[in-house]
Amino acid sequence: MNLQEKLVSGDIRALARLLTLAENNDPEATEVIKKLYSRTGNAYVVGITGPPGAGKSTLVDKLAKELRSQGKTIGIIAVDPTSPFTGGAILGDRIRMQDLYTDPGVFIRSMGTRGHLGGLSKATQAAVRAMDIFGKDYIFIETVGVGQSEVDIVKTADSVVMVMMPGLGDDIQAIKAGIMEIGDIFAINKADRDGADRTKIEIEMMLDFNETKDWRPPVSKVIAVDNSGINELMNNILLHRNYLQESGELEKRRSRSIREELLSLVREKVLELILDQSGKGYSVESLVARIVSRDIDIYTAAEDILNRIKN
Amino acid sequence: MNLQEKLVSGDIRALARLLTLAENNDPEATEVIKKLYSRTGNAYVVGITGPPGAGKSTLVDKLAKELRSQGKTIGIIAVDPTSPFTGGAILGDRIRMQDLYTDPGVFIRSMGTRGHLGGLSKATQAAVRAMDIFGKDYIFIETVGVGQSEVDIVKTADSVVMVMMPGLGDDIQAIKAGIMEIGDIFAINKADRDGADRTKIEIEMMLDFNETKDWRPPVSKVIAVDNSGINELMNNILLHRNYLQESGELEKRRSRSIREELLSLVREKVLELILDQSGKGYSVESLVARIVSRDIDIYTAAEDILNRIKN
Repeated sequence: MNLQEKLVSGDIRALARLLTLAENNDPEATEVIKKLYSRTGNAYVVGITGPPGAGKSTLVDKLAKELRSQGKTIGIIAVDPTSPFTGGAILGDRIRMQDLYTDPGVFIRSMGTRGHLGGLSKATQAAVRAMDIFGKDYIFIETVGVGQSEVDIVKTADSVVMVMMPGLGDDIQAIKAGIMEIGDIFAINKADRDGADRTKIEIEMMLDFNETKDWRPPVSKVIAVDNSGINELMNNILLHRNYLQESGELEKRRSRSIREELLSLVREKVLELILDQSGKGYSVESLVARIVSRDIDIYTAAEDILNRIKN
Repeated sequence: MNLQEKLVSGDIRALARLLTLAENNDPEATEVIKKLYSRTGNAYVVGITGPPGAGKSTLVDKLAKELRSQGKTIGIIAVDPTSPFTGGAILGDRIRMQDLYTDPGVFIRSMGTRGHLGGLSKATQAAVRAMDIFGKDYIFIETVGVGQSEVDIVKTADSVVMVMMPGLGDDIQAIKAGIMEIGDIFAINKADRDGADRTKIEIEMMLDFNETKDWRPPVSKVIAVDNSGINELMNNILLHRNYLQESGELEKRRSRSIREELLSLVREKVLELILDQSGKGYSVESLVARIVSRDIDIYTAAEDILNRIKN
């Protein structure tokens, strides 16, 4: 059997192999997914994001356990941005629940950057599709809400859970800008700490600004390590899923996400095309040198490249 | 006189007008800059970034005053990301030093997002060029170090000053990932607060990881509101400038930045081209609908669009 057949037959090693190919942006991953594309679209994808230290991994593990008790199968993709400077990983050092690892109904995978963040976004989408084809009922994408790129990744989910914690203080300002608005469901984790009620009030106030939406994001307090509030949070996710399905928003949302991804795939291919012209007596490097020496301006140079692509 | 001639003659209203055109991504801005492109490349561009609340604006104002006392002319571009959700602005509410506003040798401009962040990056580059053409000796680009897009903007500067403050605690972890490594010079502002020495030690430790570089970023303590440490910080910026010039790194760095911008301009133009095909019996929307209904897979659809661009 080839990889495609093995995957459909439920061979877990085939899934692991496809995920590795996806992470490396190997064309073989795309080829397999292309052939099995009609099998995608069945899994429900939940994005989990929030600031470092909010306890996202533990929360995902508890949600996964809850869904397992209902007989659902789970995929977890932990997007793991590494810094070229520190060589470290934000999510890399956490310890996952041991019992989830031994449960064949849960598949956990970390995706690293291995280069540029655009590649990570593409790899994560491919990984979601691989798990979807494999037949997972729920797929969690877990990202640390630091950069725009991670936000772009988590936005592709059907429901986005924004995980906060008490005591963020003024930093909530920074999180607000461009990140808070993607939350469909809010969870205040570590809610036994001081300030949980204040954090809840602050989030509710921000949500008050946005009253025009049909869906008002629920805000609930959770203590993931004690399994406290997990039921309510899971219920909020299911309520959001119901809302999306009944309002027709799910299809609209998936269409928007597909549109973004499609344009981004094309932009990436165009970039490859540009950089691949060097054998034809033309290179980006020579154009750059001419711009730096003010022999040509950057805007005219961009137009030149475009005309080359078109011809 | 037209805008171009007025700008060259030193008409400050012409600069203001060009900056407005640039902010709106008006093609006229590009046309003017194209014609005067040979006059660019003389200003020294300093990026200032760091977490919200680090006191970046005050620091920039004090640095500008210091340079003014040496007879240099200054442009300040405060990149001001606004959130579609809160409608607020992170940098928008600060109060700039009144005496800088009345000094004709200093031109301050805030640039808002007005749509997508890619547009902001393009607008900021155009604004830098406008100020450069106008003859400013130093141009400061001030961004709040929150998202990847703001990082991308500040990275275009010749020297990047990373402004920190004491008491960031564990959040330094989040800042580390992908942001800290762009700092050429570190300033710990509000250094009269508790924990300044610890913050300095933490930064120095991170820099120890990166010893392979020829330039070791200096870390200095500053109290901008008291004008304390501004001389030392300015001196560090000038040392970095000297290092870049004497090592030949300045040209390499500017070339890298031009290369990124060039490719990004082309990608943007390609995107316009794709979205402009709808009149030709073809639209992105219809392709998206076919992908959502699994009539075609997303990867094949992306290839189809590429072939269309090429023909």
